[in-house]
Amino acid sequence: MNRQQLIHRIFEKRSYLCVGLDSDIEKLPAGISRDAAGVLAFNKAIIDATHPFCVAYKINTAFYECMGAAGWSVLEQTADYIGQEHFLIADAKRGDIGNTADQYATAFFKTLSFDAITVAPYMGADSVVPFLQHPGKWAIVLGLTSNAGAADFELLPCGDQLLYEKVMQRVSSWGNPENLMFVVGATQASVMASIRKDYPDHFFLVPGVGAQGGSLEEVSRNALTPEAGLLVNVSRGIIFASSGADFAEKAAAESLRYQQQMALLLG
Amino acid sequence: MNRQQLIHRIFEKRSYLCVGLDSDIEKLPAGISRDAAGVLAFNKAIIDATHPFCVAYKINTAFYECMGAAGWSVLEQTADYIGQEHFLIADAKRGDIGNTADQYATAFFKTLSFDAITVAPYMGADSVVPFLQHPGKWAIVLGLTSNAGAADFELLPCGDQLLYEKVMQRVSSWGNPENLMFVVGATQASVMASIRKDYPDHFFLVPGVGAQGGSLEEVSRNALTPEAGLLVNVSRGIIFASSGADFAEKAAAESLRYQQQMALLLG
Repeated sequence: MNRQQLIHRIFEKRSYLCVGLDSDIEKLPAGISRDAAGVLAFNKAIIDATHPFCVAYKINTAFYECMGAAGWSVLEQTADYIGQEHFLIADAKRGDIGNTADQYATAFFKTLSFDAITVAPYMGADSVVPFLQHPGKWAIVLGLTSNAGAADFELLPCGDQLLYEKVMQRVSSWGNPENLMFVVGATQASVMASIRKDYPDHFFLVPGVGAQGGSLEEVSRNALTPEAGLLVNVSRGIIFASSGADFAEKAAAESLRYQQQMALLLG
Repeated sequence: MNRQQLIHRIFEKRSYLCVGLDSDIEKLPAGISRDAAGVLAFNKAIIDATHPFCVAYKINTAFYECMGAAGWSVLEQTADYIGQEHFLIADAKRGDIGNTADQYATAFFKTLSFDAITVAPYMGADSVVPFLQHPGKWAIVLGLTSNAGAADFELLPCGDQLLYEKVMQRVSSWGNPENLMFVVGATQASVMASIRKDYPDHFFLVPGVGAQGGSLEEVSRNALTPEAGLLVNVSRGIIFASSGADFAEKAAAESLRYQQQMALLLG
């Protein structure tokens, strides 16, 4: 899905919600078997319940790899079930030397039909650029993340900038707003406005709303643009909104609630 | 496999060679089918040919994920085939927030029986620490890597240190030489001696010998310790030593050659 299509979808649905399928097998609700088949059934029910209200899904590979090959198969079947109408993100945070990065691009863009993959920048250009060479596909590079550990390195002073600023500046020179997004955590609201000022055209994938404590309103006030420029992800706050048999209804209600807020914020 | 067992294995076999199973389906030799079954057959032949001469195998997840669920199954079967006699590394370079890192630890340490996983440090403590809490298991955190892109961020001046120095210093405070190794690329020979001086007891996983141009002798001169302290990885230089039907004999010959050099270097 290219940039224009994504923006069209956002304004059509009046939503920039991404639903994160961090489908932890240990947290599956009552009535769902705690195995690979259960995860797939759960994902399908969540997708059925939420798809009118979101424009993107994010599949966190860790929650599938922990089930081995059966989990990888669930990941594939989940991606297939979502189809082409939603922007599909592999939250994989891959990052390796060039020939290996090429293989990861193949894995997520060709073998599977993801639109985007999250990428870790530590190893530099040859670990990022291979993801920028596929038309209509995206690298979403870690900028400033939502977790406590972001303070350990991302916020280190490096000369006249912080590390994440250096990273975003250099990475942005390798791509453009048509093939590159950044992860900017919702818990970093105090600096989000200044990041937006530096990158007015790039989409930001924003995790951290909901379970991690970030605020949709604050994020949107600081970083929403005339072309939206945001995909705000909510994982646990939607998919585990209820641990009972009503989990799908509760997920629908929560995602509708976010969509309605977003419609207002889009103006 | 714990530290004492690994050291014992190294001196018993007089080898600190790690064979990297970057089994690129496009490069499989003559006579091997270019599909998942072919990759597994290739891996088994390489393992049969090289196991007397190495102490470790490193499986690069990218080359398996690119085949989808079938590839993940080959990864599992390859790990099973290697068994418990060799130190088994998942070269996965994972790194994510705490609850996700826990799932990756489950994937590689419990669902699969890897001894170690490579970890990317960008997101800080909560992305690394979950891998340090499994007795006999290891996190191998990226320090200074072997690729050209290492210059982009790892070598950035951050105050009075370079970024990789900050990273290694801080990460080393989260673990110890019993559960933490560092990736230090062979192509970084000029600084390897000083890194070893700062970390006399940690094992280094050293990629970059062979196809990437690093020298075993130089690495060993700068970083070999009385307890070895090194796992030197060779991937393409061994597994693709020949593209013909004699690929297994050539892989055996190459790994024997490395083992013989290592025996001399171990003194």
